[in-house]
Amino acid sequence: MNGYIPPLARLIDEFAAMPGVGRRSAARMAFYVLKMTDSQANSLAGAIIDAKKKIKYCSVCCNLTDTDPCAICTGARRDRSVICVVENARDVIALENTNEYKGLYHVLHGVISPMDGIGPEDIRIRELLKRITDEVDEVIIATNPTIEGEATAMYISKLLRPLSVKVTRIAHGLPMGGDLEYADEVTLTKAMEGRQEI
Amino acid sequence: MNGYIPPLARLIDEFAAMPGVGRRSAARMAFYVLKMTDSQANSLAGAIIDAKKKIKYCSVCCNLTDTDPCAICTGARRDRSVICVVENARDVIALENTNEYKGLYHVLHGVISPMDGIGPEDIRIRELLKRITDEVDEVIIATNPTIEGEATAMYISKLLRPLSVKVTRIAHGLPMGGDLEYADEVTLTKAMEGRQEI
Repeated sequence: MNGYIPPLARLIDEFAAMPGVGRRSAARMAFYVLKMTDSQANSLAGAIIDAKKKIKYCSVCCNLTDTDPCAICTGARRDRSVICVVENARDVIALENTNEYKGLYHVLHGVISPMDGIGPEDIRIRELLKRITDEVDEVIIATNPTIEGEATAMYISKLLRPLSVKVTRIAHGLPMGGDLEYADEVTLTKAMEGRQEI
Repeated sequence: MNGYIPPLARLIDEFAAMPGVGRRSAARMAFYVLKMTDSQANSLAGAIIDAKKKIKYCSVCCNLTDTDPCAICTGARRDRSVICVVENARDVIALENTNEYKGLYHVLHGVISPMDGIGPEDIRIRELLKRITDEVDEVIIATNPTIEGEATAMYISKLLRPLSVKVTRIAHGLPMGGDLEYADEVTLTKAMEGRQEI
């Protein structure tokens, strides 16, 4: 689609560059902006600038935060003996929403992926190693169950072993509500291997 | 999903308010903004402000424009004897992309829809009537083939009839590449009624 006047074309291009937004969605979003009041448009633009300006990485756990250290790292009720290692900030939110885990986090901001040219020094492993003090009893590695996630988990566990800290991996198995019949072979194998007495 | 820090939650809320953007897409877009460089984020915010500031309605045809009158209304090669009436600015772009129509446009910015409380005075019909001078030979009504679009077409054609101008309606029928077998009954009926000698 072309024929848009320049300021509109520019806005559509900006929206279309976002993940999961095609040109048609971008056009709908741009027309929505044109229908906004001036103050609504300013609020949207302000939210973008604001988020960029206020959100930083926590100097302890590398999670996204607007205070440093972040609210989790400074939380009075958090269990400081456990650190859960995740790939990105969205994983922290997913785990927080379970309302079960009360320990600390460490956000790697990626996984080791030689195919994409991402080595161990490109993610926040060094920062994790610095955090392993006598206070820490256990490190739970909660990277995704993908090839890169598994490799990263293996790599980190090897680095942590000499530091005499317990290293665990989140369980792999059938998702709740899932169906044995439709599960893939690897998941089923993992579910069998990880079986526990009831 | 909750647990986001306030500036991030605000940005997600802003994105999620857009048409066709769910909360998950909004979160992905917000994280994309955080990964942008400062100048990229400023460019995105600027495009929003800019579009709102620069884009106005053309005082002649009511289309979106950054000049007044718009480029189509002032175009030297446009046929000023034909006005095509459409529901919104996107319809103008769709018709312009055919590269066939060379006349002028009139954008109603909506259709008459009593169910939604939209009457004839809420859309740009008055502005259309003012444009019907001796120069204009034909008005093509190209509102959508929906109940509201048809009703609006009927309403406008009744108003225009006393002004001794030819009023036409775009053809309804099978879309090109469509399949008779899968066409709905109304479309088929319209296609039969609108048959032409070949």
